[in-house]
Amino acid sequence: MSRAVAILGGSGAQRKRLALRWTRAGEKVIIGSRDRQRAQDAARNIAARLGPSLPISGMENSAACAASDLCVLTVPFASQADLLKQLKPAFRKGTVLIDATVPLASSVGGRSSRVLGVWQGSAAQQTAELVPKGVLVAAAFHNISSDVLGGDASVDCDAIICSDDDNARQAAAELALKIPGVRAIDGGKLENARIVEQITALLISINLRYKTHGVGIRITGI
Amino acid sequence: MSRAVAILGGSGAQRKRLALRWTRAGEKVIIGSRDRQRAQDAARNIAARLGPSLPISGMENSAACAASDLCVLTVPFASQADLLKQLKPAFRKGTVLIDATVPLASSVGGRSSRVLGVWQGSAAQQTAELVPKGVLVAAAFHNISSDVLGGDASVDCDAIICSDDDNARQAAAELALKIPGVRAIDGGKLENARIVEQITALLISINLRYKTHGVGIRITGI
Repeated sequence: MSRAVAILGGSGAQRKRLALRWTRAGEKVIIGSRDRQRAQDAARNIAARLGPSLPISGMENSAACAASDLCVLTVPFASQADLLKQLKPAFRKGTVLIDATVPLASSVGGRSSRVLGVWQGSAAQQTAELVPKGVLVAAAFHNISSDVLGGDASVDCDAIICSDDDNARQAAAELALKIPGVRAIDGGKLENARIVEQITALLISINLRYKTHGVGIRITGI
Repeated sequence: MSRAVAILGGSGAQRKRLALRWTRAGEKVIIGSRDRQRAQDAARNIAARLGPSLPISGMENSAACAASDLCVLTVPFASQADLLKQLKPAFRKGTVLIDATVPLASSVGGRSSRVLGVWQGSAAQQTAELVPKGVLVAAAFHNISSDVLGGDASVDCDAIICSDDDNARQAAAELALKIPGVRAIDGGKLENARIVEQITALLISINLRYKTHGVGIRITGI
């Protein structure tokens, strides 16, 4: 992939750690943030860690979105709709948007081991409703904990990808395979994202029970 | 475990194959069925395969339930509530009931890659509402395909167990560990069964996409 990957969102650990992984894999990465300065600082931190000449930069979210036709959305659910409304003019026809949002109940003060019901069926389907026509949505990367993304170890987790568009599915699969250890699993239609999103809440439950961080899942028998 | 395991349900493959696995592991198994004759035939088939002196028998569902304080429910969702109402007088206080029911939309003519919304939150919670007080409910064995249970190979799948009762959770874990390869994962409260049940629909989607049978899941990082 020679095109840039824009990772849009707030200030979460997952966004920076995906940026770290994809930069290390040779991708041209743009970190998006509400605040341009914070995005640039995050990009500089990664460059300082991996090599100052690497093609990683930071931009305000709308600018990052406009600068790329491959965007990954990692945002708390409570901010998802507002950010997508803001990004609306920045999207280009044919842009692939990979949504990693999980509608955890902690978004509204509830437990992170529970999810909210989303009218459209899933956070990813809400995204599909809110983006302009012609933006191609896939859901992926929900189940990979930022704890395991942080280092450089192989990641023992699959990325289950749900999409109604083959190009978006393919782009998400390529990005998944750039993270050592991760397999890209075709999880079917975008509507199935509701299950994949909920699995994250289950993994958080299991982390709480076992006092672990970063449990993940593998699909067996493929 | 010296007590008998009663596997209650209809005529599904999962019931017979769990019976096969647990009989092979040395458990005393009672196969339950609506029809006593069919239950006895199923038990005889397993005895013919594994050894005629093994303690496996067949009974009508209510008799099987009354004969054991450890029951496993593997029934199509459409039959779950009716069977539980029928079993009500047969349950004893302290009986452990392990529910493996998945509310697949195919129960009402829909797709097996989708689930129905259950008012209580999950099929397992519907079960908990329908059994007499004092029956201890756990949810488990949703994600283990009957295709992989059929042989004698090690099963590459975890059993995620959800329960509000430690004895029920423990009993389900012991049964899980009797199947070679299966790990028992503590999935938290019974309410989390809604996620574990839905994972089965996702696994069915993945089977359809990959033209496989019997994909499963593993929790990693524990």
